[in-house]
Amino acid sequence: MRAYNFSAGPSQLPLEVLEEAQKEFLDFAGTGMSVTEISHRNKKFEEIVNEGTALLRELLNIPDDYAVIFVQGGASQQFAAVPLNLMHKGKADYVVTGNFAKKAFQEGKIYGDAACVASSEDKTYTYIPDVKSIPFREDTDYVHICANNTIFGTRYIEFPETKAPLVADMSSDILSREIDVSKFGVIYAGAQKNLAPAGVTLVIAKRDLIQEPLSICPTMLKWKVQDENNSLYNTPPCFSIYMATLVLRRLKRLGGIKAINEINEYKAGLLYDFIDNSDFYTNNVEKKYRSIMNVPFVTPDKDLDAAFIKGATERGLVSLKGHRLVGGMRASIYNAMPVEGVKALIEYMKEFEKENKA
Amino acid sequence: MRAYNFSAGPSQLPLEVLEEAQKEFLDFAGTGMSVTEISHRNKKFEEIVNEGTALLRELLNIPDDYAVIFVQGGASQQFAAVPLNLMHKGKADYVVTGNFAKKAFQEGKIYGDAACVASSEDKTYTYIPDVKSIPFREDTDYVHICANNTIFGTRYIEFPETKAPLVADMSSDILSREIDVSKFGVIYAGAQKNLAPAGVTLVIAKRDLIQEPLSICPTMLKWKVQDENNSLYNTPPCFSIYMATLVLRRLKRLGGIKAINEINEYKAGLLYDFIDNSDFYTNNVEKKYRSIMNVPFVTPDKDLDAAFIKGATERGLVSLKGHRLVGGMRASIYNAMPVEGVKALIEYMKEFEKENKA
Repeated sequence: MRAYNFSAGPSQLPLEVLEEAQKEFLDFAGTGMSVTEISHRNKKFEEIVNEGTALLRELLNIPDDYAVIFVQGGASQQFAAVPLNLMHKGKADYVVTGNFAKKAFQEGKIYGDAACVASSEDKTYTYIPDVKSIPFREDTDYVHICANNTIFGTRYIEFPETKAPLVADMSSDILSREIDVSKFGVIYAGAQKNLAPAGVTLVIAKRDLIQEPLSICPTMLKWKVQDENNSLYNTPPCFSIYMATLVLRRLKRLGGIKAINEINEYKAGLLYDFIDNSDFYTNNVEKKYRSIMNVPFVTPDKDLDAAFIKGATERGLVSLKGHRLVGGMRASIYNAMPVEGVKALIEYMKEFEKENKA
Repeated sequence: MRAYNFSAGPSQLPLEVLEEAQKEFLDFAGTGMSVTEISHRNKKFEEIVNEGTALLRELLNIPDDYAVIFVQGGASQQFAAVPLNLMHKGKADYVVTGNFAKKAFQEGKIYGDAACVASSEDKTYTYIPDVKSIPFREDTDYVHICANNTIFGTRYIEFPETKAPLVADMSSDILSREIDVSKFGVIYAGAQKNLAPAGVTLVIAKRDLIQEPLSICPTMLKWKVQDENNSLYNTPPCFSIYMATLVLRRLKRLGGIKAINEINEYKAGLLYDFIDNSDFYTNNVEKKYRSIMNVPFVTPDKDLDAAFIKGATERGLVSLKGHRLVGGMRASIYNAMPVEGVKALIEYMKEFEKENKA
């Protein structure tokens, strides 16, 4: 039985994409080779890279003066790449809205005067600071934010207007909602939530910002080098890029970002409405900032949480355990989670409540 | 028809491994999820990581005081990680025996006094400098070599005895021949030749050498951090690690490194013997240093080389084009290339010679 996989990442992929990949796993595009074996210099593979970046440009409406590259190491590696590519004056502002935002900030401090100019740590990251009243500093190289906070289930609903280029970690909401790329200097995202299997990371960067990485920047972390080499400076993570291209094709077939955004709002709406109408389940996030990708919730007590997760797993509703920093449950409902998966979860929640309500 | 894929990397994988992966592609280990979707915190996935590292320890007889970790970015990223983890005194020696050895050297120069203490560039990298007469400097942090040179088809047949820790890029010969790991400080290898699909890189490092990475080292490049987190500091390239574990299981079934080394010597012997007995094909490498993984060769003229490659492709003998730095042909015959593939190549070479000999 296929599970409904609520993992925060790596996470569920579209079944049709998996089936397509399985079907041609031994013979990619009539080459007589698996896509896992083919040279990255093979034309058929270059076509996959080009198609993937073209689909990203089309779906996200990325301006021509932005690089679109596939790199490795996940968002965690980009936490270093951001200062190593951008921190020329040695000064950057960070907004700390969760665990990964904080890690990015800490990595920034290695390379210069990184300051936390706003944080929601005071209320366990259950909100996003008002973007209009953040005291950004003068003369910074960039402002770093995390657009959607996977662990705490929050997201920006509007982005700050900043003098310095805005850099956003969009690992957990890339391709899930419409964004205006031109408002950002750099967007990066680990692929394993909305784009592809783990192993590839997307970077979208305004080209004029990335021309002079710091001298201590490892060559492989230089976005400029990856851009100039069409993501083929060295052997890329071919299989993950191939899967990303299949996922992007499907997203286009579905109607693009606008269409998936509506589906995502609908799915999240079902779940939040159910939770809000229940006096058994609770989500602690300030409503305005609720993520439509990651929905943390709890029952009235920890033992019930554990029982909930156990029962869910037995029904094929898997990876619902919340992050250790938050506890309870978390339903990650990325692009590939079908509406039926959310409905099945709600059905189970109803039954569990009925059986366990005091 | 399945091709015989002579690509230098990504390269042919064992058919039985591909078939196994295809079979369980939609349902990994009874989880109801694809291995491309499963959380890296899932026990079933942790078991895969642990099995992979345990098999590496067993097959390569890796001492307990060495870390065995899976990282990202390929060997090219390790070219920076090596100095960033090891260059405490700011001084390192490099032996430059090819294109990647040179790139590693150039990356080393970013971080300190990296010197090329020996090179075979004078003869287009067709030999390995005599390891007994290399003028290594005093007080260096490490000596860096590339064990097998993919582009030029050479390999070390003995390794230098060095005071400083010996660091080796073994991307193109890891697991292909017996080595004494204890003679090395660090061994690293991109997986896409003998281990797994592209996207994962193996690092084997003596733990006492890696305890204090440079302060400017990105967290993701710190081997210590990856070691302490069992390669799960952040989301790893799960699918490539899974495939590596399947490849390692097969290697163990085959009889381990000793067995595969014999097969590799046999395959390479067939091809070199044929070339040496021909007055049509030539391999320019000094015999003693010939690689058993990468066999470059040429016909008497460039137009014939092009015709050779075209005809080979039509027969399903693919990716035989030599690197642009060398021209001609190159047959990469890694662990997964069956003896039949080499024999099919030789058959074709015979026919082509017959048809085209002046």
